Amino acid sequence: MNKYADDAPQSADKCIGACGEGWLCEVSEMWKGQAMSLKIDEELFRGRSEFQDVYVFKNSAYGNVLVLDGVIQATERDEFAYQEMITHLPLCALNEEPKRVLVVGGGDGGVLREVTRHGSIERIEIAEIDGMVVEMSKKFLPSMAVGFDDARVEVNICDGIKYVGDAEEGTYDAIIVDSSDPIGPASVLFEEAFFKKMHRALKPGGVVCTQAECVWLHIDLIEDLAKMCKGIFVGGSMAYGYTTIPTYPSGQIGFMMCSKPAADGSTVDFTKAKRFPRPADESALKPMRYYNPQVHAAAFVLPEFARAALEPHLVPGSE
Amino acid sequence: MNKYADDAPQSADKCIGACGEGWLCEVSEMWKGQAMSLKIDEELFRGRSEFQDVYVFKNSAYGNVLVLDGVIQATERDEFAYQEMITHLPLCALNEEPKRVLVVGGGDGGVLREVTRHGSIERIEIAEIDGMVVEMSKKFLPSMAVGFDDARVEVNICDGIKYVGDAEEGTYDAIIVDSSDPIGPASVLFEEAFFKKMHRALKPGGVVCTQAECVWLHIDLIEDLAKMCKGIFVGGSMAYGYTTIPTYPSGQIGFMMCSKPAADGSTVDFTKAKRFPRPADESALKPMRYYNPQVHAAAFVLPEFARAALEPHLVPGSE
Repeated sequence: MNKYADDAPQSADKCIGACGEGWLCEVSEMWKGQAMSLKIDEELFRGRSEFQDVYVFKNSAYGNVLVLDGVIQATERDEFAYQEMITHLPLCALNEEPKRVLVVGGGDGGVLREVTRHGSIERIEIAEIDGMVVEMSKKFLPSMAVGFDDARVEVNICDGIKYVGDAEEGTYDAIIVDSSDPIGPASVLFEEAFFKKMHRALKPGGVVCTQAECVWLHIDLIEDLAKMCKGIFVGGSMAYGYTTIPTYPSGQIGFMMCSKPAADGSTVDFTKAKRFPRPADESALKPMRYYNPQVHAAAFVLPEFARAALEPHLVPGSE
Repeated sequence: MNKYADDAPQSADKCIGACGEGWLCEVSEMWKGQAMSLKIDEELFRGRSEFQDVYVFKNSAYGNVLVLDGVIQATERDEFAYQEMITHLPLCALNEEPKRVLVVGGGDGGVLREVTRHGSIERIEIAEIDGMVVEMSKKFLPSMAVGFDDARVEVNICDGIKYVGDAEEGTYDAIIVDSSDPIGPASVLFEEAFFKKMHRALKPGGVVCTQAECVWLHIDLIEDLAKMCKGIFVGGSMAYGYTTIPTYPSGQIGFMMCSKPAADGSTVDFTKAKRFPRPADESALKPMRYYNPQVHAAAFVLPEFARAALEPHLVPGSE
């Protein structure tokens, strides 16, 4: 299914200076012929973890920027768009208030920060494979790493697929997969075996939300992902939403959401916001800057070419 | 108001090769620290008109690309998003069916193509300052230049501001301003004098829709533009909508829309699609690929940070 699975991940070396000296130019086999370029005002870290190439630099417009295998993962200026949307689209759509949530990937802590905005949640687990990402985020992306400070968060530096597979059946209200692209360590997070494990680990009525690329670049990959999910989330609902975000390829990124039917057979209508994120302590976090209930509904309205391609594979919710 | 008005426009020379050999890297004072890069697979034209630097090249992913003063204006692959949205958001929102429309700028013909989809329209004028843009588009962007072929279209190679100023009061149902950025020849298209002339040239109940940059990059400029428009379109309505488009800076671009009150005092609710574009001859054009009635409504839903900044300056319609 994943045509990039066998491609070799690249290092930042290929991207630094590719756009003239002092620029990071995000060239990749995944978006041939185009590249987002960001000026490197100061190099903050350059290294290699057990899993991937890790690079952090400062840009005058976007603040600190985290780059894994030569691909921009997060910038201080626009990360909120991604973190708020991948988190609140599923958590605000659940029919029941969420109590237990798992984040796979997301080692920068940004998704955790958003999950903690839900006062109903009692336990938040994260399974991130690469400890260096957590370490770098705590050092250079403190506004995201703040997510690790919440007392409900349990950090597991481990293989997320194994973690999900080891969970008891029916454990989670929501699983959020904050993965990098399907080249390198994250390629397995786009495979059927992983989605089957997530389906098993969800409570009835629970939902999965996974990073699912961009309709302008990867409509075929998204279509294939939707077909695969449909075969697993039988009797459930499925939706595709997106957010704009300047530093992701083509300026936006989408999310595939699937729900497992509840005991009474009802499923989640992802397009409807049923609650607003209310932290137990309202003063703990800065207000959200992207998400609101109107943005929630609009996120599922796709350009005509993408609607025509994806709608046949999606399944509306039934409450 | 326009902080870029005094900046010198740049040529493609500054951008070609700035990202390593064989790439166009869209560096600009208007989006410091970031740049969209497109690989140049073949140079098709490089020249200078009386008004600006004109460059056309071929990219394997985006097809032929038109660049003015070093800034990407249109690519064959994603232009439809911009052309459909800048055209149908205003034309489908009008309370009365449009009959007479003026396009200012838009020399590539893409907006004309979309305007011709409205069978009710009897007369379409275009005022484009630069004949070389029209010429290059007919040569290298035929799927856009097809807009010039419609018998209702009258082409005027002239100063759009003068053209609007010379029009009789109350002439147009809609004026669409398809301008480049507010550096160089288009900077005057963001000024008060031009908006006052457009207001005068509109019929009661008529609307203006102008290219109005990106909320991620230029929220201050958009706020200033909104304040200015509010002082001119007294008693009318005002809205800001946007489209995603990979090859514009930060992956999206917005439109400022203003309406003049009708004789009975009613104004246009831009957020509601009141008709679907129906060409007199359905076979003349390929189907639309971005616009549909749901996309119309969703285009006005802004990320929370942009809503908070702009909503106080906008005016809902009253029918």
